[in-house]
Amino acid sequence: MTEFRHDPVHRRWVIVPLDRRRGPEDFDVPIRVPDEGFCPFCEGQEAKTPPEIYAVRQGNPDRPGWKVRVFPNKYPAISGGPGPVERCAYGLYDWINGVGSHEIVVDHPQHHILFHQMGSDHLAFLVDTYRKRLVELMKDPRFRYIMVFKNHGTKAGASLSHQHTQIIAMPVIPRIAAMALSTAREHFHHKERCLFCDILVQELSDGRRIVAQNEHFVCFVPYASRFPFEMAIFPKDHYHDFATIKDELLTPLAEILTQAIGRLAAIFGDPPFNITIHTGPNTNQSSRRANYWGTLSHDWHWNIEIIPRLTAPAGFEWGTGLYINNTPPEDGAHFLREVKL
Amino acid sequence: MTEFRHDPVHRRWVIVPLDRRRGPEDFDVPIRVPDEGFCPFCEGQEAKTPPEIYAVRQGNPDRPGWKVRVFPNKYPAISGGPGPVERCAYGLYDWINGVGSHEIVVDHPQHHILFHQMGSDHLAFLVDTYRKRLVELMKDPRFRYIMVFKNHGTKAGASLSHQHTQIIAMPVIPRIAAMALSTAREHFHHKERCLFCDILVQELSDGRRIVAQNEHFVCFVPYASRFPFEMAIFPKDHYHDFATIKDELLTPLAEILTQAIGRLAAIFGDPPFNITIHTGPNTNQSSRRANYWGTLSHDWHWNIEIIPRLTAPAGFEWGTGLYINNTPPEDGAHFLREVKL
Repeated sequence: MTEFRHDPVHRRWVIVPLDRRRGPEDFDVPIRVPDEGFCPFCEGQEAKTPPEIYAVRQGNPDRPGWKVRVFPNKYPAISGGPGPVERCAYGLYDWINGVGSHEIVVDHPQHHILFHQMGSDHLAFLVDTYRKRLVELMKDPRFRYIMVFKNHGTKAGASLSHQHTQIIAMPVIPRIAAMALSTAREHFHHKERCLFCDILVQELSDGRRIVAQNEHFVCFVPYASRFPFEMAIFPKDHYHDFATIKDELLTPLAEILTQAIGRLAAIFGDPPFNITIHTGPNTNQSSRRANYWGTLSHDWHWNIEIIPRLTAPAGFEWGTGLYINNTPPEDGAHFLREVKL
Repeated sequence: MTEFRHDPVHRRWVIVPLDRRRGPEDFDVPIRVPDEGFCPFCEGQEAKTPPEIYAVRQGNPDRPGWKVRVFPNKYPAISGGPGPVERCAYGLYDWINGVGSHEIVVDHPQHHILFHQMGSDHLAFLVDTYRKRLVELMKDPRFRYIMVFKNHGTKAGASLSHQHTQIIAMPVIPRIAAMALSTAREHFHHKERCLFCDILVQELSDGRRIVAQNEHFVCFVPYASRFPFEMAIFPKDHYHDFATIKDELLTPLAEILTQAIGRLAAIFGDPPFNITIHTGPNTNQSSRRANYWGTLSHDWHWNIEIIPRLTAPAGFEWGTGLYINNTPPEDGAHFLREVKL
């Protein structure tokens, strides 16, 4: 049993997984990082994971022969079962039962390969897998938001070193997405232009923060990025929903991802990082919700955020939400752009 | 030269200190934690720091004989000098010059003493120092917000192990404070009651998340806290501005702080943590700003946030602002309450 709790001051939801609660003795446990041969994500170890939901593969499910493999997380943050979403008041506070889903995507069958070494052909299968899972999960109208993200390295929160991605579907719009949506919607309301499209025009014209680009995508260091060497990847044309990405854009996206992570790796070796796909909320909602989110195709623009975990935020950042970034974005972009790949 | 940059999507400011910029080679440097004898914060090492601004002491400035000592940070995040605040547009983006101040408060002359071991008499001098510095910094109408915070342990961002606090004054209201202020103001607008006072009534009546209390203060684990064993300390009566804390409340505040950190230490030994004082914005503003913040005494309630750094947020938390807390707040409060001090 998991629950969502709402903070009435900061308007943020917190997930409390009551069935995997941790007491004081549980915080000293070192993170286990199984080696090749013991790793449940390796090809040949399929019996160690829950049954697969989807795979890019030859042969039968839950056997070797796959390129990308998806199954439910064995230790899910949310796992609500098939029941309805219950939304309750508890005095001033709000409560929702833990309806949702938490899936693991194993990016590649090999244990030691890094993300930028997989090659664009392979990564195109991977991003196609993200798309297919999003399309499937969006059929469930209980899920307001579906997040695809990747933790690489223990400092970035990965508990297994074998390259993998996580997909969490949840019954709330999380705070950062809600804030960004509200800003973008207001911009569209006043100007009938997408805020992100406007940002892309300025970035492409300025050029100092651009890291790489191809016909369909641009990668840049955001003007007010929180972290050194942070990057954003946007499709140059306006698309609000990652799940609607066209077939012919899969390989260009794989190429720009390889560029971005490859350039980071060329500078820092194998740094920890997080990749997050910021797509629009699920538009497959009951009629009242559908009206509320009805303008979405205009006022959101999907994008990918890459955060290298080179520094650790401290008390100041937690208390204020105001970040100190010691690498000016123009410097970061310069170093990343100058790498010889 | 430092600058503030504004992210137009997430409405957050980022500080970019252009005069201490870090390139790729600067991220491998291990954190220096000088031992006793080499530590610039120790009694007898006053010559190693900038000249003191304030101290609780006997004898002359910048000499031994002090209990608490304040001086400008040698490596400030913001250090703008005496000039005016410049606010500029840069296309879609916003820019402010780095006007502000960054001070260090050394909590105690001894190198190895921990926060909860200093005793309430000493901590009363320390919180009085916070009050006096706030009063002084609030005289500068360029400073919209002044934050008092403490990082303890390298995992919490401390670069020196000798107990110290930081005070940063800045020309913007940071995002988390702005969001909380806007929520609290809206609540007051509709109900003519303080949102935080309402929360205290519910918490004191419920009781399950209370850790400790005395006549003037209560310490509890917030209902939707982001982190295991997170705590909040509130004055039971309504006060919006930490700088106005009355003399007779200094010792009760020192006592509840000793209780909170002492209980955490009894469970975890010497865990890393952050303490943040969330006070209201500076009300000493030019007339137009003063009108805007004029209702503040009604709709803010100062409080202290204590975040133990037992876990590291990963990609999911960064991407969503939605936290997973594996220790239900009622459990955390139970463990903290049951400690025999």
